[in-house]
Amino acid sequence: MQPASPVQPVATSDLRRAVSDVLDEFLRDQASVLREVSEDCAPVLDAISALLSGGKRLRPAFCYWGFHGTGGELPDEGIVTAAASLELFQAAALIHDDVMDDSDTRRGQPAAHRRFEALHARSGWDGSRERFGLAGAVLAGDLCLGWSDELFSRARLAPDALDRGRRIFNVMRTQLMGGQYLDMLEQASSDQRGTDGAVDRARRVVTFKSAKYSIEHPLLLGGSLAGASTDLLADYSRFGLALGEAFQLRDDVLGVFGDPAETGKPAGDDLREGKRTVLIGLAVQAADPTQAAEVRRLLGSPELDAEGVETLRQVLVDTGALSGVEKIISEQVDVACATLDAADVTEPARAALHELVVAATSRRS
Amino acid sequence: MQPASPVQPVATSDLRRAVSDVLDEFLRDQASVLREVSEDCAPVLDAISALLSGGKRLRPAFCYWGFHGTGGELPDEGIVTAAASLELFQAAALIHDDVMDDSDTRRGQPAAHRRFEALHARSGWDGSRERFGLAGAVLAGDLCLGWSDELFSRARLAPDALDRGRRIFNVMRTQLMGGQYLDMLEQASSDQRGTDGAVDRARRVVTFKSAKYSIEHPLLLGGSLAGASTDLLADYSRFGLALGEAFQLRDDVLGVFGDPAETGKPAGDDLREGKRTVLIGLAVQAADPTQAAEVRRLLGSPELDAEGVETLRQVLVDTGALSGVEKIISEQVDVACATLDAADVTEPARAALHELVVAATSRRS
Repeated sequence: MQPASPVQPVATSDLRRAVSDVLDEFLRDQASVLREVSEDCAPVLDAISALLSGGKRLRPAFCYWGFHGTGGELPDEGIVTAAASLELFQAAALIHDDVMDDSDTRRGQPAAHRRFEALHARSGWDGSRERFGLAGAVLAGDLCLGWSDELFSRARLAPDALDRGRRIFNVMRTQLMGGQYLDMLEQASSDQRGTDGAVDRARRVVTFKSAKYSIEHPLLLGGSLAGASTDLLADYSRFGLALGEAFQLRDDVLGVFGDPAETGKPAGDDLREGKRTVLIGLAVQAADPTQAAEVRRLLGSPELDAEGVETLRQVLVDTGALSGVEKIISEQVDVACATLDAADVTEPARAALHELVVAATSRRS
Repeated sequence: MQPASPVQPVATSDLRRAVSDVLDEFLRDQASVLREVSEDCAPVLDAISALLSGGKRLRPAFCYWGFHGTGGELPDEGIVTAAASLELFQAAALIHDDVMDDSDTRRGQPAAHRRFEALHARSGWDGSRERFGLAGAVLAGDLCLGWSDELFSRARLAPDALDRGRRIFNVMRTQLMGGQYLDMLEQASSDQRGTDGAVDRARRVVTFKSAKYSIEHPLLLGGSLAGASTDLLADYSRFGLALGEAFQLRDDVLGVFGDPAETGKPAGDDLREGKRTVLIGLAVQAADPTQAAEVRRLLGSPELDAEGVETLRQVLVDTGALSGVEKIISEQVDVACATLDAADVTEPARAALHELVVAATSRRS
């Protein structure tokens, strides 16, 4: 036997592969648990596998580097498993989010509920196709939510490390659901609540619906698993919240101005769904009466066509909302980078996290 | 200080109170986690609290007695917490089940999605009331699912005991979701699959959608946490599956023939939803052409009225389906009782489980 070599944190593409391997093996195990129920459950697993095959593995990367940023010769195996569990958690959030928003596509493929609707239609079954689609997706999301926890608990880490990680995992779950509720509430009540404070409310949604669970909590999870110091965890939080906001604002910009061929989502989907993003908040706060009337008329209209999308885009440009959002992105990236440069973090982690800053905010999909 | 007295397993009503206390304290903690997101999240917690205030605490009772059935002087505190986590798991299942079935009521109160619809209407908000209701309920169910796991992990039990318990918890979650999918599938495809095997298929749904998670898995969870022998776990399984089927079949009978004032559900709801129960399976297998035509015409019709419900009830009586189901219930109760009598279980647990057999199968709600 060779002596164990000192552990080298893996490169980004290796990490992506390692995460995918963990997920593939886990899904094979779950396939046999579901097969005990019935072979007929196969489409549920197929829908989940298809979704998991895509994705940038961003959250596992933050978790992984949050762990290795603490230094020391830490074994890789356990952290890759814990990091991969975040992909299952995100899959649950995406599947249920698409049900709640009635979205058609996700990662360039049909959304889970649309897959089940298509199965129902193709099979010539009875009853409502939409109801079957909804049920299939609710259950697929529930499975992913339970599985994220199951995979996390499988990570070969010390019981006290897992307990520390669970505290982060628990807050992450609860606050994401709270943030999503706030997002729905803001869509329903924003006209009533008025334009004053619209930007602040939208930024609060961004923090809880995205920044925390996309970046801050994954980093804190990795750091906690490795027993990071209070100071480093505070730096991870500051870095994660700033970058997380920039990440989501980039997403919002892409949701309106992005190329559907690259984002995998139809142009203007966020506008059609009436999402109350920071972009919209800035626009309504700066709009003249004509522009305000256009937003009221078009935003959230299910029949919004290409021309309507173009009109809203123009309002977002003319009111300065687009440049305002780009300014926040750039400020938050600066905060994230300055925090990272000053943090007591290992050099490989600092370099990897700098790369992730670019990946999260300069992307086109 | 007094010396610790030997632990006495608590009586059933004390257990119910202890479980409620654990849940109340847990929800208070979660309220503060959600308050960090926004005070506006209060209605989500209200919906969950309202649902949890009801319920027979059946699953915690099986878990508790599965634990104390193994004997020894086991501390009570940890097991009550683990047992209470099953109520949160069930709450998640019920909230999502009502969304999938589009049910109006649960435990005599409006279903969670209806509560959120009413909030939307009362507040005069924009957009679709139904969509807001759906989103609120999906998120409330997701919260309960995450919280069940969080509460389970809080139980003061040794790490290896919790690991054994988690294995049961994991299988329970996955197979319940699989069972619910099978139930939806059976409703959609049963005409296509034909009457041959309809009863077998319906009994399979009962096993995975109800018997396992209502009784078998809670018992196994308690037993595993206490380190029960393989023999005792096998007896718990046999007992739990038999009683679990009887329990669900009693539920099916109440769903068609029960008094709405006692069940808290409108009369004939299962018939309106087109549920493919064992009752229906037996009826279609024994039906003459006229009766078969009535079932085809009425079962699953959203407009099913009191007269239609009465017609279907008559078919269920005339085909012998009702007496057939009562016969299975009685056979399965016999299997459960014989298994329990022969099992190497403590006497207080044997007595309590015998009481639970009666509670689960002779109830009227």
